[in-house]
Amino acid sequence: MSELTIWTLDWVPDGPRGFVRDLRLRWACEEAGLDYAVRTVPFDGRETNHLARQPFGQVPFLNDGDLELFESGACLLHLAAKSETLMPPDPVDAAETVQWTIAALNSIEMVTVPWWFLKLCGDEDNQLTGWMGQRLDHIERVLGERQWLAGGRFTVADLLMADVLRVNDVRAFGNRPTTEAYVTRVTDRPAFKKAQADQIALFEAADAKKTEQAS
Amino acid sequence: MSELTIWTLDWVPDGPRGFVRDLRLRWACEEAGLDYAVRTVPFDGRETNHLARQPFGQVPFLNDGDLELFESGACLLHLAAKSETLMPPDPVDAAETVQWTIAALNSIEMVTVPWWFLKLCGDEDNQLTGWMGQRLDHIERVLGERQWLAGGRFTVADLLMADVLRVNDVRAFGNRPTTEAYVTRVTDRPAFKKAQADQIALFEAADAKKTEQAS
Repeated sequence: MSELTIWTLDWVPDGPRGFVRDLRLRWACEEAGLDYAVRTVPFDGRETNHLARQPFGQVPFLNDGDLELFESGACLLHLAAKSETLMPPDPVDAAETVQWTIAALNSIEMVTVPWWFLKLCGDEDNQLTGWMGQRLDHIERVLGERQWLAGGRFTVADLLMADVLRVNDVRAFGNRPTTEAYVTRVTDRPAFKKAQADQIALFEAADAKKTEQAS
Repeated sequence: MSELTIWTLDWVPDGPRGFVRDLRLRWACEEAGLDYAVRTVPFDGRETNHLARQPFGQVPFLNDGDLELFESGACLLHLAAKSETLMPPDPVDAAETVQWTIAALNSIEMVTVPWWFLKLCGDEDNQLTGWMGQRLDHIERVLGERQWLAGGRFTVADLLMADVLRVNDVRAFGNRPTTEAYVTRVTDRPAFKKAQADQIALFEAADAKKTEQAS
């Protein structure tokens, strides 16, 4: 049995397929060449059925031997420490990588996720729209000056930033060609494609099982 | 000259005094017994005047010798690596500390800051209120089971989580006595009190200088 186990939901509706955040961990493992298993907790009752493992009722969470971790950002930093593909060995490059990993979580996703939530609530032109436009403009400028966020090469910071920026509604918001080229470049990586295909396959297999049980 | 330099704004209005995020870095240095200097960039034109150092136009940012870092979360992890007071040496405790540091940024602040922003826009009972209540309820439950978030002791994760939760409007939202006791306990630490007093003193000195220049 693999030492690394990524936990996700056993099924999700079509909408989030290819976007559930276990994908971030699968992708990191694929980039790093780390063996991993995937296990699931039930979609039904997800708000409360795994609070002992993830105190906000979310996925993913990670086992590494006896170590139990949640928060996709923390799991990514943990996996990155195992692989120079994800985390450059030079201390300055590593600090820059952590900085941009946190920026993806706390300067970009802190705006994009609530904006998207308000949009889902039917409030398309909501009060976070201006703030989101500013943050995405800043990213557009930064990506005009460099191909990768940290250390002059692909790192876990690009993995996370691209995953935050590739959300359909965020990607379609405004016209930022440099950001679009960046997201395309990062998600063209074979490790992303395998991780995404594997996640979608898991949920499709769950569909098939449901159909079988119902017949 | 100190190797560590924390950068903040040269002045802010009364409202944010005691809450500008350079406080997180001052507090961490005080906890760790690290020498540091504080320098400022102008409040006027802050949206664009230091983009080369902080690509979203915010503060704080940190110099550690030649290393330049932004994102308060990344700066905290960098400072924490210098001190067992902030980051436990045991690898499992350290992983748990990073996990809860990221949780403060991406599971709590990702909801509290946009909620607060909507409230400031005049929308007190906004569409993020339910989500915020759920997240704060989860924290209340977690803090009912343990005194500190990670490693059975104070860590940088408590510093950051308490700083996120102590924001006046967030603290006043609902009735969560365990969370309130936690915030009180963490912010009763002498290192917090010194960091907060020093920040407020800097902005008050800037007031006095303005008055002098105007007279």
